[in-house]
Amino acid sequence: MPDVNLGYYFLSEFVGTALLVLLGCGVVANVALAKTKGNAGGFLLVNWGWGLAVFVGVLGSAYSGAILNPAVGIGLAIAGKISVVQFLVAAAAELLGAIVGAVLCWVAYRSHFDAEPDPAAKLGVFSTGPAIRTPFGNFLTEVIGTFVLVFAVFAFADYGDIQVGVPGGLGPLTALPVALVVVGIGASLGGPTGYAINPARDLGPRIAHAILPIKGKGGSDWGYAWVPVAGPLVGGAIAALVSPLVLGLAAAAA
Amino acid sequence: MPDVNLGYYFLSEFVGTALLVLLGCGVVANVALAKTKGNAGGFLLVNWGWGLAVFVGVLGSAYSGAILNPAVGIGLAIAGKISVVQFLVAAAAELLGAIVGAVLCWVAYRSHFDAEPDPAAKLGVFSTGPAIRTPFGNFLTEVIGTFVLVFAVFAFADYGDIQVGVPGGLGPLTALPVALVVVGIGASLGGPTGYAINPARDLGPRIAHAILPIKGKGGSDWGYAWVPVAGPLVGGAIAALVSPLVLGLAAAAA
Amino acid sequence: MPDVNLGYYFLSEFVGTALLVLLGCGVVANVALAKTKGNAGGFLLVNWGWGLAVFVGVLGSAYSGAILNPAVGIGLAIAGKISVVQFLVAAAAELLGAIVGAVLCWVAYRSHFDAEPDPAAKLGVFSTGPAIRTPFGNFLTEVIGTFVLVFAVFAFADYGDIQVGVPGGLGPLTALPVALVVVGIGASLGGPTGYAINPARDLGPRIAHAILPIKGKGGSDWGYAWVPVAGPLVGGAIAALVSPLVLGLAAAAA
Amino acid sequence: MPDVNLGYYFLSEFVGTALLVLLGCGVVANVALAKTKGNAGGFLLVNWGWGLAVFVGVLGSAYSGAILNPAVGIGLAIAGKISVVQFLVAAAAELLGAIVGAVLCWVAYRSHFDAEPDPAAKLGVFSTGPAIRTPFGNFLTEVIGTFVLVFAVFAFADYGDIQVGVPGGLGPLTALPVALVVVGIGASLGGPTGYAINPARDLGPRIAHAILPIKGKGGSDWGYAWVPVAGPLVGGAIAALVSPLVLGLAAAAA
Repeated sequence: MPDVNLGYYFLSEFVGTALLVLLGCGVVANVALAKTKGNAGGFLLVNWGWGLAVFVGVLGSAYSGAILNPAVGIGLAIAGKISVVQFLVAAAAELLGAIVGAVLCWVAYRSHFDAEPDPAAKLGVFSTGPAIRTPFGNFLTEVIGTFVLVFAVFAFADYGDIQVGVPGGLGPLTALPVALVVVGIGASLGGPTGYAINPARDLGPRIAHAILPIKGKGGSDWGYAWVPVAGPLVGGAIAALVSPLVLGLAAAAA
Repeated sequence: MPDVNLGYYFLSEFVGTALLVLLGCGVVANVALAKTKGNAGGFLLVNWGWGLAVFVGVLGSAYSGAILNPAVGIGLAIAGKISVVQFLVAAAAELLGAIVGAVLCWVAYRSHFDAEPDPAAKLGVFSTGPAIRTPFGNFLTEVIGTFVLVFAVFAFADYGDIQVGVPGGLGPLTALPVALVVVGIGASLGGPTGYAINPARDLGPRIAHAILPIKGKGGSDWGYAWVPVAGPLVGGAIAALVSPLVLGLAAAAA
Repeated sequence: MPDVNLGYYFLSEFVGTALLVLLGCGVVANVALAKTKGNAGGFLLVNWGWGLAVFVGVLGSAYSGAILNPAVGIGLAIAGKISVVQFLVAAAAELLGAIVGAVLCWVAYRSHFDAEPDPAAKLGVFSTGPAIRTPFGNFLTEVIGTFVLVFAVFAFADYGDIQVGVPGGLGPLTALPVALVVVGIGASLGGPTGYAINPARDLGPRIAHAILPIKGKGGSDWGYAWVPVAGPLVGGAIAALVSPLVLGLAAAAA
Repeated sequence: MPDVNLGYYFLSEFVGTALLVLLGCGVVANVALAKTKGNAGGFLLVNWGWGLAVFVGVLGSAYSGAILNPAVGIGLAIAGKISVVQFLVAAAAELLGAIVGAVLCWVAYRSHFDAEPDPAAKLGVFSTGPAIRTPFGNFLTEVIGTFVLVFAVFAFADYGDIQVGVPGGLGPLTALPVALVVVGIGASLGGPTGYAINPARDLGPRIAHAILPIKGKGGSDWGYAWVPVAGPLVGGAIAALVSPLVLGLAAAAA
């Protein structure tokens, strides 16, 4: 495990996740809120927006290796690549960063939140919700989507000179692959639940939604909030357990 | 030919193809099934979804060089880059992986399969079908599309330090080019048949469709099933025979 | 600070920004003007068009490191990476280049400007305008979007062998990341104001709009012109002040 | 000038351009012809399809450095990077390759050509035509678009270890930038004329259209045929004359 300055570690994760959520929630605001220039711009626009949000978030989070996601963090901790303390520090930073990113998104789209009559559209900018509400089914969808994400991140780590969780690890050379994987997961597995695949990305903005004085907002749908937290954590953990069996083959043969 | 552990080889192809088909069938489910967030999201969304499905599949299949497709495998075998046994082991793994990937896709989109009234839309998530049914014409379209795919894969192999079929061969550096080629083939040659360009990708999910207890499903259209198997195999074989004539020029001149 | 030939520096920034604005305004013309082949092609088309406009602009501006944007320039000046004279020379070249690029766009789309009845659509090809006019809110949106852009550019600079502002600095290896960041900012933060995020990109074409004999044109909306100049300059300056605190961590730890 | 085997040179350009036109005309067929799966898929789909057609064409044309376009070839000849004989051999191969690629596209989409009632849609799959017919204006648009393309290709050549026109020159490392530039030119400058930006890409398929027994086809619009030949040649020549002034700066300073 790398020896890190936990203050720097926190700051790096905080900034990266704030950028991630600012841009990620931003593209949903652009597509979903009234009178924006990207209104009804389509699901592929959302997918590229979120994928490139990850791209920018990774660029802004070099010191900590750009974890940005407690589902990735739990996988790294299970794999012994970061310590439990590092996981907890990162997760706290990610949650706080996600709240701040969501607040900045609300600032950037303030007048469109005011112009939008539908409370569900406003909540949808912040947090995910199911297209068809079947909590266990929704949970399974999040498990599968996050498994793919964390498995792919581990695949980068086993493929060469990249060390996930090490300062500078998931740097600009891998920002593009991660971004593309997120575009792909969104396009392919985002249909049922809107692909949280990241507890901080969903819970942080939900807290922001509950706190912010958003004109005409409705409830924050706390009854669903456990799904996009638990599903990604389980998916990330499974990926950490499964990936050495598969990805280790190439390393062993090298 | 590389000396490989056939068990690892099988596992690597199985995992990569399962990821490929999970994400590939997933994007069709997202676009085609009722009430998804990507419903009617357009053909370009499907193209990016399938292209990035290949991207993730390649990342998860390093040991075996990410063949993922019996049409690529037959080309590599004809070219003497893998043995007949390796081809057969890989093809079996790919077929089994494709079945498992399709089942996972069904799990992820379970409630949307239940909500979709059209049996043809459900089958379309699993397997390809022709826009206009002219079996020999559809066969030719699949031959042409797969020729382009396998020719391009051979072009990567002749361009430098990449060795297709060697452990770690078609790794992350080439995952992006392959993904882009598949986006391009889909956009350009996917209009008539939905671009199977991979026997395992089509036959595996068709078997899954036949077996799974999908609510309100229709038949599995076995009468068409030979086209997306035979067309890709012929296209891949032709590419293997033609490519040395063209791609070998640069190598000879180097 | 690099020792540069200011004449070359000016020419490099002029050409790069002319290409940037030719292609950037071009995609808006394609989507917005009557009878084009891309008419009503969607916001994602605009985002890719502008992102790839940056890509081409960077390719054409190697000598000066492809600043192309006074908001990037002010950040580099604050960070001590270019001198005040270099900033001013670059900004003048960028403004002139943006005017010329906008004129070339008008030439390329001449008959479509003639065929378009709506003066607002014509102005929209040249300069940005708000979806909902709330000047201070629009200003904040531009500050946030430009902060993300300049912060990301600084992240490239701190990640390795890239030296922003040095001849050849922001070359082809980083043209792709910058282009993707601009696609992402457009998708995510372009909804309220059309993402000027560059004073030259907005002011230059506005001057061109005012000067050119465009058939049936309306006013150039000078009342709004300060927003896409001031917002980006403030956002770029903030990024220059904040980024060393965060991005310096990785460098310090290296 | 590189010492090349002119037979290999011809074959390399022939194959690359055939692939380029097969995929490029293919995406238009997919979007424009009746009953395809990509019907009415949007201009961005066309842009990605043509961009990735260039990507695949470059991959298949390593020996000759992937010129693929007489407008690029004339630029290289003016710049002294290839000989006049090489330019002529390449141009002949490109024209023949474009004819063959168009025939293959017709084979792949045969039943959709039969099902399409509009002769203009059929011709549009093969060759470009103006949205508003103003021959000199259309010529200027093609000059501008091709200037950007060839200038960008020269920018790659001046940026480092790439040697355009040398065997292996415009290989896989630059296939991606060229593809992206073509996506960008299409999105931004394709609105008025459909961006031929390549004499072979337009004239070859027009000859194929004239020859092939396409059911219900109309005329081949030979009156317009000079525009997408002359415009690109002029644009490429201007780029060759202008680019040393600008791009040479970085090389001189290196």
